[in-house]
Amino acid sequence: MRPELGVCYYPEHWPEAGWADDAARMARIGLTWVRIGEFAWGRIEPVPGQVQLGWLDRAIEVLGAAGLKVVLGTPTATPPRWMIDRHPDMLAVDAEGKPRKFGSRRHYCFSHPGYLDECVRITDILAQRYAHNPHVAAWQIDNEYGCHDSVLSYSEAARQGFRDWLAARYGDIATLNRAWGNVFWSMEYGSFDQVDLPNLTVTDPNPSHVLAFRRYSSDQVVRFNRAQAKVLKAHTDAPLIHNYMGRVLEYDHFEVGDDLDIASWDSYPIGFLSDRLDETAAHKLAFLQQGDPDMQAMHHDLYRAVGRGRWWVMEQQPGPVNWAPYNPAPLPGMVRLWSLEAVAHGAEVVSYFRWRQAPFGQEQYHAGLLQPDGRDAVGADEAVQVVDDLAKLGDLTQAQARVAILFDYPSDWAWATQPQGAGFSYFNLILSAYKALRRAGLSVDFLPSRQRAFSGYDLILAPGLAVLPPDLSAALNASGAQVVLGPRSGAINDDYQIPDAGRPGVPGLDVHVDLVESLPPDHTRAVSGGGQVIHWQEQLSGEAEVLLQTEAGAPVQMGGDGLSYIGAYPDEMLWDRIVAAAAERAGLAVTRLPEGLRLRDMGAHRFVVNYSAHAVDWNGARLEPCGVAVWKDGARVF
Amino acid sequence: MRPELGVCYYPEHWPEAGWADDAARMARIGLTWVRIGEFAWGRIEPVPGQVQLGWLDRAIEVLGAAGLKVVLGTPTATPPRWMIDRHPDMLAVDAEGKPRKFGSRRHYCFSHPGYLDECVRITDILAQRYAHNPHVAAWQIDNEYGCHDSVLSYSEAARQGFRDWLAARYGDIATLNRAWGNVFWSMEYGSFDQVDLPNLTVTDPNPSHVLAFRRYSSDQVVRFNRAQAKVLKAHTDAPLIHNYMGRVLEYDHFEVGDDLDIASWDSYPIGFLSDRLDETAAHKLAFLQQGDPDMQAMHHDLYRAVGRGRWWVMEQQPGPVNWAPYNPAPLPGMVRLWSLEAVAHGAEVVSYFRWRQAPFGQEQYHAGLLQPDGRDAVGADEAVQVVDDLAKLGDLTQAQARVAILFDYPSDWAWATQPQGAGFSYFNLILSAYKALRRAGLSVDFLPSRQRAFSGYDLILAPGLAVLPPDLSAALNASGAQVVLGPRSGAINDDYQIPDAGRPGVPGLDVHVDLVESLPPDHTRAVSGGGQVIHWQEQLSGEAEVLLQTEAGAPVQMGGDGLSYIGAYPDEMLWDRIVAAAAERAGLAVTRLPEGLRLRDMGAHRFVVNYSAHAVDWNGARLEPCGVAVWKDGARVF
Amino acid sequence: MRPELGVCYYPEHWPEAGWADDAARMARIGLTWVRIGEFAWGRIEPVPGQVQLGWLDRAIEVLGAAGLKVVLGTPTATPPRWMIDRHPDMLAVDAEGKPRKFGSRRHYCFSHPGYLDECVRITDILAQRYAHNPHVAAWQIDNEYGCHDSVLSYSEAARQGFRDWLAARYGDIATLNRAWGNVFWSMEYGSFDQVDLPNLTVTDPNPSHVLAFRRYSSDQVVRFNRAQAKVLKAHTDAPLIHNYMGRVLEYDHFEVGDDLDIASWDSYPIGFLSDRLDETAAHKLAFLQQGDPDMQAMHHDLYRAVGRGRWWVMEQQPGPVNWAPYNPAPLPGMVRLWSLEAVAHGAEVVSYFRWRQAPFGQEQYHAGLLQPDGRDAVGADEAVQVVDDLAKLGDLTQAQARVAILFDYPSDWAWATQPQGAGFSYFNLILSAYKALRRAGLSVDFLPSRQRAFSGYDLILAPGLAVLPPDLSAALNASGAQVVLGPRSGAINDDYQIPDAGRPGVPGLDVHVDLVESLPPDHTRAVSGGGQVIHWQEQLSGEAEVLLQTEAGAPVQMGGDGLSYIGAYPDEMLWDRIVAAAAERAGLAVTRLPEGLRLRDMGAHRFVVNYSAHAVDWNGARLEPCGVAVWKDGARVF
Repeated sequence: MRPELGVCYYPEHWPEAGWADDAARMARIGLTWVRIGEFAWGRIEPVPGQVQLGWLDRAIEVLGAAGLKVVLGTPTATPPRWMIDRHPDMLAVDAEGKPRKFGSRRHYCFSHPGYLDECVRITDILAQRYAHNPHVAAWQIDNEYGCHDSVLSYSEAARQGFRDWLAARYGDIATLNRAWGNVFWSMEYGSFDQVDLPNLTVTDPNPSHVLAFRRYSSDQVVRFNRAQAKVLKAHTDAPLIHNYMGRVLEYDHFEVGDDLDIASWDSYPIGFLSDRLDETAAHKLAFLQQGDPDMQAMHHDLYRAVGRGRWWVMEQQPGPVNWAPYNPAPLPGMVRLWSLEAVAHGAEVVSYFRWRQAPFGQEQYHAGLLQPDGRDAVGADEAVQVVDDLAKLGDLTQAQARVAILFDYPSDWAWATQPQGAGFSYFNLILSAYKALRRAGLSVDFLPSRQRAFSGYDLILAPGLAVLPPDLSAALNASGAQVVLGPRSGAINDDYQIPDAGRPGVPGLDVHVDLVESLPPDHTRAVSGGGQVIHWQEQLSGEAEVLLQTEAGAPVQMGGDGLSYIGAYPDEMLWDRIVAAAAERAGLAVTRLPEGLRLRDMGAHRFVVNYSAHAVDWNGARLEPCGVAVWKDGARVF
Repeated sequence: MRPELGVCYYPEHWPEAGWADDAARMARIGLTWVRIGEFAWGRIEPVPGQVQLGWLDRAIEVLGAAGLKVVLGTPTATPPRWMIDRHPDMLAVDAEGKPRKFGSRRHYCFSHPGYLDECVRITDILAQRYAHNPHVAAWQIDNEYGCHDSVLSYSEAARQGFRDWLAARYGDIATLNRAWGNVFWSMEYGSFDQVDLPNLTVTDPNPSHVLAFRRYSSDQVVRFNRAQAKVLKAHTDAPLIHNYMGRVLEYDHFEVGDDLDIASWDSYPIGFLSDRLDETAAHKLAFLQQGDPDMQAMHHDLYRAVGRGRWWVMEQQPGPVNWAPYNPAPLPGMVRLWSLEAVAHGAEVVSYFRWRQAPFGQEQYHAGLLQPDGRDAVGADEAVQVVDDLAKLGDLTQAQARVAILFDYPSDWAWATQPQGAGFSYFNLILSAYKALRRAGLSVDFLPSRQRAFSGYDLILAPGLAVLPPDLSAALNASGAQVVLGPRSGAINDDYQIPDAGRPGVPGLDVHVDLVESLPPDHTRAVSGGGQVIHWQEQLSGEAEVLLQTEAGAPVQMGGDGLSYIGAYPDEMLWDRIVAAAAERAGLAVTRLPEGLRLRDMGAHRFVVNYSAHAVDWNGARLEPCGVAVWKDGARVF
Repeated sequence: MRPELGVCYYPEHWPEAGWADDAARMARIGLTWVRIGEFAWGRIEPVPGQVQLGWLDRAIEVLGAAGLKVVLGTPTATPPRWMIDRHPDMLAVDAEGKPRKFGSRRHYCFSHPGYLDECVRITDILAQRYAHNPHVAAWQIDNEYGCHDSVLSYSEAARQGFRDWLAARYGDIATLNRAWGNVFWSMEYGSFDQVDLPNLTVTDPNPSHVLAFRRYSSDQVVRFNRAQAKVLKAHTDAPLIHNYMGRVLEYDHFEVGDDLDIASWDSYPIGFLSDRLDETAAHKLAFLQQGDPDMQAMHHDLYRAVGRGRWWVMEQQPGPVNWAPYNPAPLPGMVRLWSLEAVAHGAEVVSYFRWRQAPFGQEQYHAGLLQPDGRDAVGADEAVQVVDDLAKLGDLTQAQARVAILFDYPSDWAWATQPQGAGFSYFNLILSAYKALRRAGLSVDFLPSRQRAFSGYDLILAPGLAVLPPDLSAALNASGAQVVLGPRSGAINDDYQIPDAGRPGVPGLDVHVDLVESLPPDHTRAVSGGGQVIHWQEQLSGEAEVLLQTEAGAPVQMGGDGLSYIGAYPDEMLWDRIVAAAAERAGLAVTRLPEGLRLRDMGAHRFVVNYSAHAVDWNGARLEPCGVAVWKDGARVF
C-alpha cells in the first residue's frame, strides 16, 4: 500500500475562473485526492426540484483533468433553507424542548421520515449523474454525524419513532416494564403510547429508559446512513465513506461502518487538546501546539477497526483552527508529524482541511493550505515535505497488532447515564488504558465489542465494558490471550439491570463486585508496590487470586494467568504496572518510552514520533522537536 | 423509652415467594419496624379505578406474622402514568416555564386541585382497608416533600392559586401595592388578576413578590399534607408521619408537622457531605467516609422540634449511595455510629434504607442491608451490633437542653431572595452557630420562630431571624436567658420591607443597623482579641455596650447581659468566643472537644461519638476510629 | 465652567408632607440639581388614558421653590402593568425564546411599534405640561438603555423589523447572500422572509448574520430614543440627556448621543469592580472598597465623547449598593474622590443616587445620602465636603487631550461574535490600552470611530478596531500623529468578511496578518526587551520595520514613525513599552505614577487622586489614603 495525500475543496466558494489554477497547484504539491460537494446542496438544488449540476460537472472535470481523484460528498448535512419550509418539523429538538434552527449546519432530526426521503432523492440524483464519471473515485455520505450534539433529538418524530422501536424490541408493554424494572417508583406503562422521551423528568429518569433511547437514537443514524448507502451501491462500486468526528460517541460507529467501505475521520490535534481532552492544565500546556500524543493515534486505531482495515484522515488540521476555546498554531513540523503518524497507523489517504482559507462564514479563522488571498500558508510547505517522505517510505503493509482493546459505544452511553461518580467517562477510561499500552511501546488494535474471534492477540483489555454476554466471555476464555477486564465490565445487562449472575459474572473468574465507590479527585488510595486507585473502587470478593491490593488490603486486581479483573480506576503508574505484568504473562516485550515519544510498528516499518517541543535521544537516534523517524527492517529511512 | 430499628422494604420489587424469608431475616437481625408502600401506587391501582390490594394484604400479613410493625406509606409521591392522562396540567412547571415530566417521581404540582382530590381518594381507600389492620402501626404520608426542588412550581394552577391566596391575604389590591412597595419601578397592579408568578422577569423581581410566593408555596405543601392527614385521622389513631429530606427548606416543616404525630427524616451523611454541605475541600476530605460531624445532629435536633419531641430516622444510609457527586463507602463502624448518634438525640426508631439493593431503576447503585443477590451487605452486620448496643443501653429519657436556637424557614426564603452577598445562606449561618455550640460540648434544642415560651433555656441564639415581631422580642426579653441575635435578625417585616422601627428594632436593645456590607471570601476583618468577620458586616450605632469590635474599631457585637446583637458573620474562632462569653454569662459549662468528637447528653446518658478516622483519647477514655462511647450516670456503658 | 452637584429623588416614594423638608435639606447640602420622574409612569398614568400630573406639578414646585433645578425623566423604562394587557407582544424575548415578563423594569422590546407609539404619547403629554415650567432645566429620556441585557430581543417584532432592515440595507436577497458568504454551508436564502434571527442554531450562526442583527438592534435603540427626542425638541430648548450604564456596549452610544445634548452615566465604582471588571483576584482585593483606578475615568472620557464635550454623572454611588455579587462600603473619602475625579474629567454635574434609601422594592439595600429613616448616611457628609472643594476650585475649563483612543461599538459586537479565543473582549483590550496611557500620566480623549479630523492629537491608538475604511486610514495617515493600530484592527469588512485587501489593509503600512492564534491564560510569549504577549498573537509579514519581536523572533509590532501595527495582545509591561515608545516619537512627556495614583490635567488644573488605601508621597506632595490633590498653574489648591 502506498499512502496518498488529499485536500478538501469548495469550488462553489470561489470564482470558476480560478479552479484550474487551484487544481494545478494541488497536483504540483503532490496531492492526488480532492473531496468536494458535501455542503453544496444549496447550489445543487437552489430551488426545490430545480437541480443545477452544470457547475459541479465542470468542477469535477477541471479537477480530474489535473489528475486528481474526486471524493464526492452527498450534501445532506446542510439542507437548504427551503427544506425547512417543506418540512417544518424536520429540525432536531434539544433536551430542553427547543427546536434547533436553520442557520448553520446539521439542522435535521435523524428520525424524520420526510427528510430521509429528501436525502434519498438527492443522493439518487447525484449517483445517477456521477456514478460513472471517471474522476469520481469515492463517495462520502453526509459529514460528521453527531457533530454539534446532533444525534439525540427530542422531537415529535423521535418520540413516535421511539415508541415503534420499543414495540418492535419488546413486543408487549409488560415485557418492557419488567425489562426496565418500572415497578420502581410506579413507572409502569399501560401501553407503548404512554412512553415519552427521557428528558425533562423531575429527577433522573430510569437508566433503562435512557439506554433504550440511546440505542434507538444510534439506530436512527445507522438507518439514515444505510438509506443513502443503498442508493449509491445500486449505481457504483466505488468505495463509500463516512467522515467521522473525533470523540463523538453518541452512535455505534461499527454499525454505521458495516454499510460502508472506508472509515475516515477529522484529525484536529490542537483543537481537540483544547476542546475534547480531559487532562491536567500542565499536560495541556506542554502539548499546546502539538496536541496530545495519544489522542490522534487512538482515533486512528479505532477508525481502522470501524473501517475494517480501510481508513483515511479526511480532514487533517493544517494550521490554527477556529472552533476550540483556544486556537494556537502548530509548532513547525507538526503538520508533517501528524500526517506521517496517520500513515504509521495505516491510513490510505491523509487529506487536509481545507485548500484555501474561507474569507467568509463561520470558519473564516480556520487555516487552510492557502491563505484567503491565495498565498501559500505554512501547511502547504509541510505537505510538500510529506509527499517527499512518502516517496522515501515506499510500500507499506498493514499488520495485526498483538494487543487489543475491546471498544463498545453503548458502554459510553451506559456510564454517561449513571456515572455514579461525577465525570466518570468511558472514553477517558479507554484512553487511559490505551496510553499505558503506548507508554509501553506496544502497538494496539481496537476491536468492536461484538468481536468473537481473537486469534493472533496475546493481550486483550476490556475496561468498562458494560455488558459481557456469555458468548463473549466464552470466546475470551478460549482465546489463549491474557484478558484484563474491569473496572465496571459486565456491570449491567442489555436493559440496564444488574445481571442475575452478578458483576462481572464471568464463568471461570471467581470474582464478585459487592459494592462500588466513586471517589473525589482529591482522594486516592495507594496500592501496595506503587500506583494509586483514583475515581472509582469496587469491593471485590471471591476465590480468585488477588494480584494487586491497596495498602489497606482491599483487592484491586484479581484473577490469574488468563482472565483477570480490575476493580478500580488506575492512575498512570498503576496502569503501567498492570500492563507490564499482563504483557509479561503474554510474552510481549515492553519498551519504556520517554515522555512525548510514541512508537508504532507497521509490518517492516517502525515509526517513532516526537510530540515534545525539544529534541529527544532514544535508542541511539536523535529525534528533533516535533520530529519523525522511521526504520525499515531496523535501518533508519529518515 | 427504648429505641428500635427498622428498614424500608419494597415487596412489590421481589417475588412473593421470598417475602417470608425476608421478614424472618429482618426479625433475626432484630429489626422491629418495616416501612412499605410509599412508591406503590402503580401496583395498588394499575388501571384507573381498579384497586388491587391483595398483594399488599399478603405482604402486610407476612411481615406482621414475623413480628414486624408496619409503617404504611400513602403512595402519592409517585402517581402512575395514567394519572397524567387524566390531569395533563398536574405536572409542576419549572422556573423556565417547562413542565416537569413523568418518568421519575414527585411529578406533581402542589397547587393542582385535581391531583389533590386523587390523593384524598387513594388515601381513603388505604385507610378504609388498613386502619384496623393489627400490623399497621403507623402511617407515612407521601415521601420527601420538596425533594428534587419540587415545592416551587410555576404552573397555571399555581398562578391561579397564588392570586386567590393574595386576595385572601391582602383584601384589596391597593393594600398589596403598599405592602410590597410597588410604587418602586411602577410595579403597581390594578387587580389581583394582573399578578403573575415572579419568574422570568427582566431583572430581579420585587422581594416582596418573591417572599409572598414562597409563603404561598409553603402553604400548598401544608394544605396537601393536611388533606391526607384529615382522611387518616378519621379512621385511625395510629401515629402519622411525614418523612422529610435533609436540607430541604422550601416549606415550613413546623406547619406541616402540626398535622402529624412524628417527624422522620432521611439521614445520608456521606451523600450530604458531597451534595449538600458548603464546606472547604479539606474538611470534606477529612470526613469523606464519615459525613460532617454536625450535619446529622443538627437535623436530628431540628426534626425533634418539628415532631414536638417525637422523631425517627426513616432512612438511614447503610453503605454507599448513588445520588451524590461522589459516593464512597462509609468507614467501618460508621453505620453503627450514625445509628447510635440518632438515638443520642432522641430518635424513637432508626430505619435503614433499604432492605435489599435494587438491581433495576434509578437507585441500582444504592446499597441496602442486603446485596442485590440477597447476600448480607456490610450494613447488616453493623445493624446487628446496634441491636446489641441498644440492649446494653436500656431505657433512655428525653431531656430539654439548656441551649436553644430559633429556627425559621421563611428566613431562608428571605435571604435566598435577596442574599445581598453571593452565597449568603440562612442554613449555613445556623449551621455555623450550631457547630460552635457543639464544639463547646453543649446539647442544643431547636425551637420554631413562633415559640414564645422559653422556660428552662439559659442561652438562646437567633441568628439571621428575618422578622422579629414585638411579641417575640418581648418574650425573649422576659425569658431570663442570654439571647444573642443577629446578624440580619429583625431586618425586614413580613412583607419584606425594612421595618419602620429600624433594624433590628428590639425594645431594650439600643442598637441600629446603619448599613450592611457583603464581603468576598478573600476579604476578612480581624476582631480585637481573635477571630474574623467573614461574608457580612453591618455598621452598628446606638448606645448599647460594644462587646466585640474589629481591630479597626467597628462594633461587631453590642448589647449586654441579656440581649445582644451580632452585626457580622463570625468565623469559627469568633463564634467560639461569642458562644463562650454567652455561655459564661448564662452559667453554662463549656467543654472544649477535640476535632471530630461530639457529645450529646440525654438524661442520665452521655453519648460521645468519634467522627474522625483515628482513635482519640478524651477525658480518660479512648474512642476508637468511628467509635462511640456512652456513659450512664458517669459510668461507661460501652 | 463651575461643576455642580445633584441627586436622584423619588417624591412618589415618600409622603408629600416630607417633600419640602427634603428639598430644604438638599439645598442645605449644596445640591443644585434633582432628577425625578424616570420610573413614575405608574403614578403619572395609573389607568390607561387617565393622566394624573397634580402630584408631579407639586413636587416640581416644591423642589423649585427650594432653588433646585429639575431634570425630568420620561418614564418609559417602566411601563405600567396595564401596558402589557394592551400590547401583550411588547415584551422582549430572550435568546432561548422566552418572553421577559413584567415585574421589574425595562420590560419592552425596542422593535415593538405599538410601545414606541405609547412612549411618544406619554412624552408629548409631559412635554406639553412641563416644557415651559421654570424649574425644569433639563430632560432625561428613558433610563439606562441596555441595562439587564435589554437591547437584543428575539421577539416576533424584532424578526419582522430585522427583515425590513435587511431589505433596506441590501436591496435584494442575492446581494445579502454574497455579502454574508451564505454559500458556506448552503445557508443561502431565497427571500428576506426566510431570514430568521440568529439564535438557537445548531452550531454558531454566520458571523455576518449576527453582526447584521447587532447593527439592527443598535439602530432600534437609536430610533427609540430619537422618537422621544423629536417630541421634546418640538417643545423645549432645555438640554436632552440620556443616562447610560457602565460597560453597556450593545448599541452605538455615539449614534444615540447625536440626538441629545448631554451624555450622563451611572458611576458605581465598587459595584463595577465586583460585577463588570475582568481583573485578577489580587487586584480586586486591593481596590475592593475603592473601585478600579481607571474604570470610572475611562467611562468619564468615553461619555465626554458621546456628549460631544457635555457630560454628567447622573448616578454616583454614595455607599454600598445592592446589585453586585459583593457589596462592601466605600472607604472613607472615596465618595469625595469619585466626585472630584468626575470633575477632573470635565463633568458638569455629579448627581448622587439616591436621596434616601428605599425601605421597599428591589434596591432596599442600596445606600442613599439618607438612611431609610431619614438620618444622614455617610455619603451626605462627603457631599458637603465636595461642595466646599468645588468652591475652592473656582472656574474650570475643558481642554482637548493630546492623546486619543478610537472607540467603536461594532468592534465589540464583532469580537463577541467570533472571539476566536475564549474571553477575547474589545472592552478589555481598550481598557488595557487606556490603563497604560494612564500609568504614563497621560490625559486621554476617546474619539468615535467615525472621526476623521485629528487636529491637535499627537498620539492615536486604535486597538481592535474591526473595520478600517479607506477614508479613516487616509485621515490617520494625514494626521501627523503617531498612530498605533492592532491587534485585530482592520480584520473584517462591514459585513464580517476578511477584506480583499487583507488585514489590516492600510495603505502605506506594509504589514500583513498571515494567521491568528488565540492563547490560553497559562501560555505567554516573552518579548525581547521585556513584556509578554498574552491571549492573542498574529503572524505578521511585510516589509515594514519590526519594532518589537518575541524572543523566538516573531514580529510583535511593525511599522515606523507614523503608522504602526501591533500583532499581539500586550501584557501591562509590553503596553507600557509600546506607549512609552510611541509617546516619545510623539514628543509627549511620560510621568510614571505609583500604583493607585492617577493624574488628570484640565486646562490650568492638575488633579491627582489616590485610589490606594494608604498614603502616597509623590512629586513632593503627600496624598492621604483615598485622597485628592489639585494644583492650579502649579500651585496646590488642596
